[in-house]
Order: sequence, then C-alpha cells, then structure tokens
Amino acid sequence: MRARAWNLPTRAPSDVSGLRALLDSGELQAEELLCVLGKTEGNGGRNDFTRELAMSSLEHLLAPRLGLPAERVQERVMLSFSGGCEGAVSPHMVVLAQAGAPLAQRRAHKRLALRIGRTRAFQPEEIGRRVQIEETAATLRDLVAGLRLDSPADVHLVQLKGAIPPGRAPRNDMAHSRAASALGVALALREIDAARLDDDPLCRDFELYSSVASCSAKPGLERTEMLVCAMSPWCDGDLVIEHGVLRDLLDLEGVQAVRRRLQALGAREVLGVFAKSEADPRGVLRGRRHVMLDDDDVSDTRWSRCVLGALLAATFGDTRVYVSTRAEHHGPLGGGPLALLGRV
Amino acid sequence: MRARAWNLPTRAPSDVSGLRALLDSGELQAEELLCVLGKTEGNGGRNDFTRELAMSSLEHLLAPRLGLPAERVQERVMLSFSGGCEGAVSPHMVVLAQAGAPLAQRRAHKRLALRIGRTRAFQPEEIGRRVQIEETAATLRDLVAGLRLDSPADVHLVQLKGAIPPGRAPRNDMAHSRAASALGVALALREIDAARLDDDPLCRDFELYSSVASCSAKPGLERTEMLVCAMSPWCDGDLVIEHGVLRDLLDLEGVQAVRRRLQALGAREVLGVFAKSEADPRGVLRGRRHVMLDDDDVSDTRWSRCVLGALLAATFGDTRVYVSTRAEHHGPLGGGPLALLGRV
Amino acid sequence: MRARAWNLPTRAPSDVSGLRALLDSGELQAEELLCVLGKTEGNGGRNDFTRELAMSSLEHLLAPRLGLPAERVQERVMLSFSGGCEGAVSPHMVVLAQAGAPLAQRRAHKRLALRIGRTRAFQPEEIGRRVQIEETAATLRDLVAGLRLDSPADVHLVQLKGAIPPGRAPRNDMAHSRAASALGVALALREIDAARLDDDPLCRDFELYSSVASCSAKPGLERTEMLVCAMSPWCDGDLVIEHGVLRDLLDLEGVQAVRRRLQALGAREVLGVFAKSEADPRGVLRGRRHVMLDDDDVSDTRWSRCVLGALLAATFGDTRVYVSTRAEHHGPLGGGPLALLGRV
Amino acid sequence: MRARAWNLPTRAPSDVSGLRALLDSGELQAEELLCVLGKTEGNGGRNDFTRELAMSSLEHLLAPRLGLPAERVQERVMLSFSGGCEGAVSPHMVVLAQAGAPLAQRRAHKRLALRIGRTRAFQPEEIGRRVQIEETAATLRDLVAGLRLDSPADVHLVQLKGAIPPGRAPRNDMAHSRAASALGVALALREIDAARLDDDPLCRDFELYSSVASCSAKPGLERTEMLVCAMSPWCDGDLVIEHGVLRDLLDLEGVQAVRRRLQALGAREVLGVFAKSEADPRGVLRGRRHVMLDDDDVSDTRWSRCVLGALLAATFGDTRVYVSTRAEHHGPLGGGPLALLGRV
Repeated sequence: MRARAWNLPTRAPSDVSGLRALLDSGELQAEELLCVLGKTEGNGGRNDFTRELAMSSLEHLLAPRLGLPAERVQERVMLSFSGGCEGAVSPHMVVLAQAGAPLAQRRAHKRLALRIGRTRAFQPEEIGRRVQIEETAATLRDLVAGLRLDSPADVHLVQLKGAIPPGRAPRNDMAHSRAASALGVALALREIDAARLDDDPLCRDFELYSSVASCSAKPGLERTEMLVCAMSPWCDGDLVIEHGVLRDLLDLEGVQAVRRRLQALGAREVLGVFAKSEADPRGVLRGRRHVMLDDDDVSDTRWSRCVLGALLAATFGDTRVYVSTRAEHHGPLGGGPLALLGRV
Repeated sequence: MRARAWNLPTRAPSDVSGLRALLDSGELQAEELLCVLGKTEGNGGRNDFTRELAMSSLEHLLAPRLGLPAERVQERVMLSFSGGCEGAVSPHMVVLAQAGAPLAQRRAHKRLALRIGRTRAFQPEEIGRRVQIEETAATLRDLVAGLRLDSPADVHLVQLKGAIPPGRAPRNDMAHSRAASALGVALALREIDAARLDDDPLCRDFELYSSVASCSAKPGLERTEMLVCAMSPWCDGDLVIEHGVLRDLLDLEGVQAVRRRLQALGAREVLGVFAKSEADPRGVLRGRRHVMLDDDDVSDTRWSRCVLGALLAATFGDTRVYVSTRAEHHGPLGGGPLALLGRV
Repeated sequence: MRARAWNLPTRAPSDVSGLRALLDSGELQAEELLCVLGKTEGNGGRNDFTRELAMSSLEHLLAPRLGLPAERVQERVMLSFSGGCEGAVSPHMVVLAQAGAPLAQRRAHKRLALRIGRTRAFQPEEIGRRVQIEETAATLRDLVAGLRLDSPADVHLVQLKGAIPPGRAPRNDMAHSRAASALGVALALREIDAARLDDDPLCRDFELYSSVASCSAKPGLERTEMLVCAMSPWCDGDLVIEHGVLRDLLDLEGVQAVRRRLQALGAREVLGVFAKSEADPRGVLRGRRHVMLDDDDVSDTRWSRCVLGALLAATFGDTRVYVSTRAEHHGPLGGGPLALLGRV
Repeated sequence: MRARAWNLPTRAPSDVSGLRALLDSGELQAEELLCVLGKTEGNGGRNDFTRELAMSSLEHLLAPRLGLPAERVQERVMLSFSGGCEGAVSPHMVVLAQAGAPLAQRRAHKRLALRIGRTRAFQPEEIGRRVQIEETAATLRDLVAGLRLDSPADVHLVQLKGAIPPGRAPRNDMAHSRAASALGVALALREIDAARLDDDPLCRDFELYSSVASCSAKPGLERTEMLVCAMSPWCDGDLVIEHGVLRDLLDLEGVQAVRRRLQALGAREVLGVFAKSEADPRGVLRGRRHVMLDDDDVSDTRWSRCVLGALLAATFGDTRVYVSTRAEHHGPLGGGPLALLGRV
C-alpha cells in the first residue's frame, strides 16, 4: 500500500487543470483518489461560495472518470475546501491518493497511510452532545483499526467535515459541531480521558483538546466525513507525516520543532502544511492587546489565518499552506495543531 | 546628548495615558520630546480617522505642557501615525526624546542620535518631480551634517511625512510624493547616483531605492517633515539602531540578519521595530500567485501589513511593531526596509 | 421659549466649522445649545472612532465658550453621534438650541419644545432589566412634565444614549440597553401597558415597541442621556416635529405619510430627518430573501442604514438624513420610527 | 412570435431549481430559451465567483437538455450574471424565452420582441477604440433589422457582455470596453451622432450616452454578446417594455415616470426591473458630499447598487431588481438608464 500526494496551485476556485493533467496523463487513476483538500480565495465565511465552486468543478471533472453522476462523487472521494487565502497564502489543492494492498511484512520505517470514512447520519439534537463525540470517536477508531497502526500516536492528522444536519436544535451549529468533532478525535486517540466528558466540557473547558484534529462543519451535512493520516509500518512509498501543537498564533519555535521532527524522519521536502488558527478569544497575544476581535470590517478569522499563514509560508518558503480557522478544542486556547506532510 | 525611547501600548487611538504618565512623573520633560511614531487600529486608508484622533489627543496633551496652542504643537514635535494594526500587531506609540549637548569627545561606541526637520513648502506641481527629490535630499543633508556623523551609512532610519500641498497637479498624489521622498533620502545618503535621476525613474525604475527611508505622504501637508535616526560617536545613552532590507514579505532570514547586527552592537532588548511592506505588484510571492491585489473586500495594504507584522512580532516576541505600507523605492520591488531600535 | 435648529454639513468628522461660525457670528450663544446630533462617515461598529473624533472636536470647540474643561462639556450639551453615512447619506450635524422662558399664554399652534436630561447612574446588573426600563421612564416623565405638554402624544422623538456601566453582567450589553431604553420610552409615553413588562419581554416580544424612541447605547456610560422633542403650546418659534412608524425598510408610503402630517402642521421645509433601521432578523423583506445577514464582508447595520437612508434622501431631496441602526423595540420587527423636524 | 419571461428567486448562486422546474414540467422548452439575466450575492468585484458558480450551474442544467456539452451552452443561450445583492435586493434570475414566427400581419399593439447575437472576435488593441464602437453598432443594427421595428426608438434595453480579449493593450480593460459598448449602442440607435466620435470622447465626454444600454465587460471574452429587447408590432404575447433615464441615484421621480409609461402600455404587473448605477464621480449627490468614493472598506459599486436597488424595490414593492454598476456613457454622469418589463 502506497500513498501519493500532490500540492497543486490553482489559478481560480474552478481551476482543476492540475488534477485533470494528472488523470489524463495516466499518472493518477481516478479510483486511487481518496481526498482533495484545498484553499480557495473566498472570505471563508457564510457568503463564501468559492468552496462550492471548487467542489462542483471537481465533481464534474471526476464524475465521468469514476462512472458516477456528479452529485455522487463525494461518496467516493472526500472533498474538503476551506475559504480564505489571506496575505501570503496561495490558492492550491492537495491531492491524496493511495493504491495497493498493505505490505505482507512490516517495514522498519513507517510511511504515510490514509483512510477515509464517515459516521452514521446525525440528528440535529445530537450535534454538540456527547453522542456526537462518541460516534465520531467510534468511527475514527474503526478507521484506525483498519490501518493496523502500532499506536494511536501514529495518527498525525484527522481532517473532518462535521455534520450539521438540517433542522433546529440548541447546539446544531458550526462551533458546537466542530468542537464535538475535535473532542471525538481526542477521545478516540486517547488524548483525553472519557471521564472528562461527564461534565459537558464542550466550548467551556479548553484544556481538553486534540493535537491532530482539523475539523470544519458544514450546514446540511448529515454524516461527518473524515480522513485519517497516519504512519504505518505496513506501507511503502516515500511520504511521511508529523504534527505538533502551536501554543499561539506567533509560535515560530513550535513550527520549527515540528519541522525538525519531520526532518528526523528523513523528509527532504515539505509537501503539505496543515494548521488551524484562532484569534485568541481573550483579546491578548503575547501579553499585548490584539484588535482582531474588534474589527467590524474584516472577520477575525481572516486575520488569524493571515498571521499563521504568513509564519508557515515564511518558514517553509512556500505559500501553498492550508490554514483554516475556528479551533475549538484544537490545541490550547489561542493555539492550534500543525501537521506537516513530507517526502523522504 | 542622549536619546531616550519608550514603546507605549495604547488602549485606543485617543489613549495618551502612557505619555501623560511619563510627563506627569517628571521622567520626561515635554521640551525633550522630538517625535511620536504610532500605529492605530484603523484601516490605514482614506477613511481612517484614527490617525487624526491620535494626533489631536497628543496635541491637546502637549499644548499646555509646551505653552503652545494645540494647532501649533506639530511645529515642535513630529507626530507620525500610521493606521492599521492587522492581525498580530498591537496599537502602540514609540516616543523619542533627546536632551543635552553633543559630547565634547567622541566615544568608542556609537549611540542613537536623533534630529527632526522639514523642507520648505512645496508647490503642487513640484510633487513627484526632481525638485522634490532634491529639496528632500538637501534638507536631509543639512540634518545629517548637524549630527556630525562619521558617514551617511550611519543613518539607519529616516521617517518622513511627505508633502502633498493643496492644489491639483499631475503627480501631486500620495504615491508620487512617497516615491520622491524615498529617492530624496537615497540621494542624500548616496544610496543612488544623482545621474540616475535624469531619466525620471519615479515609480518606474524600481532598482533605485533607499534602504533606510520610511515615507508616508499626507494630503494638505505643504512641507515634508522628517526624523533622522543615526549612530553617532558624539552621543551617550544606551540606544542603538540598525537596519537592513527585506527582499520580500516573507524574508525571515532578512529579519534575523538585522537582528544579529543589532545584537552585535550590544543590544540586549529590541525597543522598536520599523518596516515598510508591499504586496508584490507583480502578483507573485515566492514564485506563487498571491491574491492580495484581487480582493475587493479588503485592501492589499492591510494584508501586506498583516503578513510582515506577523513575521516581525513572531521573531521578536512582541506585537508592538510598526509596519506601514506602500513602499515605492523603499527597498526592492515587493520588499522593503527594516530598522531595529535596541537598548544595550 | 423658542427652539432653533441648524442642519450643518461636515467635511470630516472633526469639522466643526459650521457650528464655530454660528457661535463666532453671535447667531447662536453657546449657553443656548442643548444638543448636537450627527452622522459621521465611520462604519458605525466597534472600531468606528469617528464618533469620538467628532465629539472631542466639539468639546474642544465648546469648552472655552462654556467656561468648562473639555471633559465636562457633555454635562451641559448632549452630544450624540452615529457612525455610518452609507450610500446617499451625507455627513452632517443637527444643532438644537433653545432660549427664553415658556410663554405666559398658550398659543393656538404648537411649536417644537426641547428638553434634555439624564437618569441616575446604573449598576451593570440593572441593564436590560425592568429597573432600567422604569428608571428611564421615570426620568422621561419628569422631563415631559416640565414641558407642560397637552398629552404624551405630543412627544415625537426621544433621542437616548443608553447606559452600559463598566462591569460585567448577563445583560450589560448594547442590545439589551437599547431595548430597555426603548421600552422605557414606550412605558413613559403610554405606548405600552406596564403589565406587559411582567413577562420580561425584552428582546423577545417585539410587538411591544415605541414609535418615538431612538436609542443608542454606549459602553462605559453610567447614566442614560436623553433629549425630548415635543410639540408645546407654550413655545413660539417656527419649528414643528412629527413622527410615524415605518413597517419595513422599504416603506415609502410610511415616509410620505409622515411628511404629509408635517406639511399639515404648516411646514414648508424639512430640517431634520431621524430614523432607525434594521435588517429584518427573519431574513425576509417584502416576502423575499434578503442577504444582509449573511454578508461576512459588510455588517448588516451598514446595509440597512444605506437602504433606509436612500429612501429618505430621495423622498426629501436632501442627503443630510440621520439613520441609525439596531432597533430593538423601536417600531415593529424589521421596521422603525421616523421623526421629521420642519420649519413652518 | 411570442416572448415569455419569468423572474425566479434563487436560494443561492447555484440554485437553478426554478428553471429546472419550468423545463421539467414542460412549461418551457430548452430550445426557446434566449437569455438568463441574474443577480447573485457576491460583491460584484474581481474576487466575486458567484457569477461563475451561477453560470456553471446553468450550463450543467441546460447541457443535456440542449444536447450540448456544458462548455458550449453559452453559444446558444446568453447567460449574464451580475454580482451584488446589496441591502434590499434579493438574488434572482430573469429567464427570457421566445418561440414562434413573426406574425403575418402587424398588430395594433406592440409587444416585447427579443433577439440575441454577438460581434466578431475583437483584438486587444481594438477595445476602447472607435472600431469597437462601430462593430458593436453594426451587430446591433443587424439584430434590430431582423426585428422589423418601426423605429430604433422601439428598442428599450440592450444588455451587453463586452469583450476583453486576452492580451494587453492600453484600453483593453473593463471601463473602456463598457464605455465603447454603450457608445456602440447609442450610435446604432441614433442616440448620438457619429461625428461626435471623431474626437475620441470615450470616458471623457459624458454628455454622449445611451439611454437603453446596459453593458458589462468580461475579461477573457473575445466576442461581445448582446440581447435586444424591443417593442414590435409583429409579435404577440403579453409582455411590454419601457425605459427612461434617471438623472442621479436618488431620482425617484424618474423611476415613477418610467412606471407610468409602462402602465400607459397597459401593464398591470412589473416583471423585471433593469438599471445601472454609479456613485457620482464628482463626489456630490444632490449638492452634498457623498462618501462612497472614500470608503476603503467597501467598494462604491456596492453602495451605489444598494441605493438605487432600495429605491426600485421600494417603488415596485419587489426586491427582485437587477441593478449593475459602472455606467460610463450610460445616461448622464451620476445617473443611468432604467428599463421596466411588464405584463399587460
């Protein structure tokens, strides 16, 4: 089993020419595709339609190649786009594919292993509740089990699109769905103790968090979709992944620490950079007032992505970095997880 | 002669409590004040009135202490505020003061020396023309001469507020005024050759630039105001200044190089960080498309300040950094100058 | 007793030249000034400092003329500025003054009578509670009593700056303070029945509303300030005022109805237009979806002011109209009050 | 020959359910479709991708029904979407269809007649030049000739998507392309005298204008597309169209005058409202300063659409109005054309 990845720049949200070229040249078979993660140049907010345009363009590209109608493509390939290429960040998509069977014998060096899956459909009143956390965790545990990892610690990134099923309920919103998804990841990977969930810590006790989750939430989605990126001794290929936690938006040292760990795995090239950002809700950064939360002209989500994206692009010398916002229970308050995908 | 500096956080554009405390405690005499440089939380654009509010607040603070009417305070103290505290950047003001006579004997170690001045009044049709460049240069040469520097290379920062006198003329605008100011600095400090000006390179030949200028332009201002920050052997005190050029918005190595040079002067603490930013007008950053110039919701000036401000704040662990935008002939295209003020 | 009014265009938030000219020419005595209401070209949000700049400029203009320090001017003159001159609306200030004693004999025709006052200081936990409503009502009743009106129905506009005292409490915010102020006005003027307050209808039962209130709320303000504009038979002068309720943002017929009533009072000229706007929180306008609430680039407050301001400016052929936003319990949901000041 | 029209609300830029229902029910045959004009909830600027999403959605809807690949649908049906549903304006699409042959005998009452066409491909250096004006005019004259109108005055709306072919040239931009399109319409319909073009009046002499043009310009488009809406005695059906010019953004009387003329044609219902708006470039509206051009947070195009959209929606009691911006040579400076489509 061998994973492959491409980081393709895009000229516009609807630009799928990079992936089309991979498919047309035969370098990539449509059936091998597992996931496309991308950043588009919208505002990342409610009136950002660039994500839909990107996904619709991919669906129409892939449908005939998968022999499916366009509206069913996402049953086979996870498409996750995040709006907002602020400042230095350049629009791009990371294409993840995998082919072949697990190796018959374990290798000395672990390599990237991927798996996608989805939960059962949620009811509106389940969102933001313990049941969402536990269902998310159960689905993730199943996916991880299928990868035959040595340890849950070998999971370095879980990318989720969280359910917000149609219908009203007190917590059926983006913040609660994201938060429960993150706690679900933390629970499945033993980052937190199940007993800590008894007090309903959601969006309240921010000492509970995942260091590998990267969760969005999508109104209308009934089943949470997830991609697991892990290191497995049963895979070959030349890809490796590492992760770490940034303590705040300016944590250059944290970024460099993850990079050093990736290099220690033999990586010579960084192929993908995945992070979550958050304008510290306490209004303070490194002991000083920040004004991101008081700007009625531009959302704090845009500013925080811009800040972290700038640090990551500068560190790696590459502006194709994936930073998405709102990081409830993703790393410590004001901070967030960072995962790096590299090629050895 | 001894320069002193304070980097004061502000709670709002009108917050002058930090400076008031310095004055009321007797730590600083109003007569010693030379300049206040600050960042306010506006958008930095045409409809940003936070700069006016900050300056008006300072005028009303200083007027009774200087024995002047409020509207005449700026004849004695240079007030230069830049709008836009994007992302990590925290609103603040840097207060610069100087007292005493030049030393009778030169010291082995140079220290910060300050001087402010202004050009004659310009006519609208002079702006953006060679005469503006040469008048700016002449004024700067006089100021530098008064500082008895060893070399023009001992000037590390020239902060300018460029004239845009009332009245219409083809180049009487902000871009041309800033550009001519920067070339005036470059000419005075021998960064460029006067002969290169024969071809009217303004806003055209961006290989001509200053590495120490930091120029704004203010509609209605008739005389260009400037502050010179240099290293002089005839001063004591504990302040030093260094500078360098960043090749682009992501030039972390450039930032660290200036920091190392400052440390080599014995600085243990960075008191002030002054930079100019620019979204590369070619639409490309590190070889990839950036979208700052195509965003009709937020000005590219805000994004570029956010990016560079993030890098500087992360590097120095302090969010009180001064980044202003539009950097015509300030460093190479897409890059800009950086000056660091330190305490030994 | 005779009220006078001027509608002065401003060139910038700090432009007080119109009022200065009135004072310097002797046309207006500073002591006669009761209130200055104005619109400035900010965004009307948290990071709008144009209001502070306008008020600070007025304070410095008036302080020497009133023999007061600048920080005490607002004890004598109510200054109320609203940010946001969207679309057609032109920045301006309406200056209201009054002089002389009440007439000894009632006149056949009523004329504009003004009065300003303020409540006692509130505690944070009182805001948004029945006590705020009743205190507001009590203060207003006192002011109205002093005007010797024939009926509470002769009050046509109550402009309020509501308290939000320093400190945290569940309802100590702008929405609750404005809402309680509006219900206080409604209670004092018998627009609603006190018994309806038993169920704590604040921000919940929007069938309760005032048709004459125009309430803002200001963080840090301890005492609610208010201006009463009424029609009194004990005043002379040439000013009259009328009001009405607009059922939604597009209620042109409602606007014209108020205008006709003003004309019926003999008004030949409209001097001031005062309205509250609100993007209907149900997301629907005239039966169709509106997108003001889903725009993450521009606040719905700006759009709703733009819409209503356009209608008013077009109807009256004058862009100096005062529209402020957030209209909890000000007219029906999605609608709001309109008051017109005219000269006979 | 009989034209039909539907004004369909949309729930999102990609919502084509209204048109799908018309097609699926057999009420409309795909072959009868001539044009879909719509407003989407983007910002109308460079980073507005809602138009592309809407058009892509329509292409995928229509392709199988027209037996064409998606990328060729626009060869058969003109799709013209304008971003920006500011304030009161509700996202919608106007579907225009026509079927049958011209009548054998002229009718006493004229009815709506439609025709679409396109120019030859332009070269970049032709844009904004007389040749673009004349080619546009020639194409329009041909289309009009085919309609056998009594007079050019029977054309009430010419909707254009102007070419901006790939490649650089001094005037190959949106403003010049729109301006030349509008003058082309004016020339073809004898609104201006050809001799007036000798002086190259483009974007300079704004006394030359069309009263029926509504022109956009699209980067990358090589051939200008246009739709003619006219009144013909050779058509039946129940649709009529009228137009007029608004002298400024607040010209309520102008709006009402066009409505009265439409009613005089027997229209009982307004089906479509089409207008162009412009923030007066002189910075003045009804004699007072407007601040739309000085807002660095929101484009003046959004404000001007909001203002005019509010007036139109209020007048017609319907928020499905089509207002697009930038109106060079469309009506007088600061004003613009208005066309009304009605059903008798």
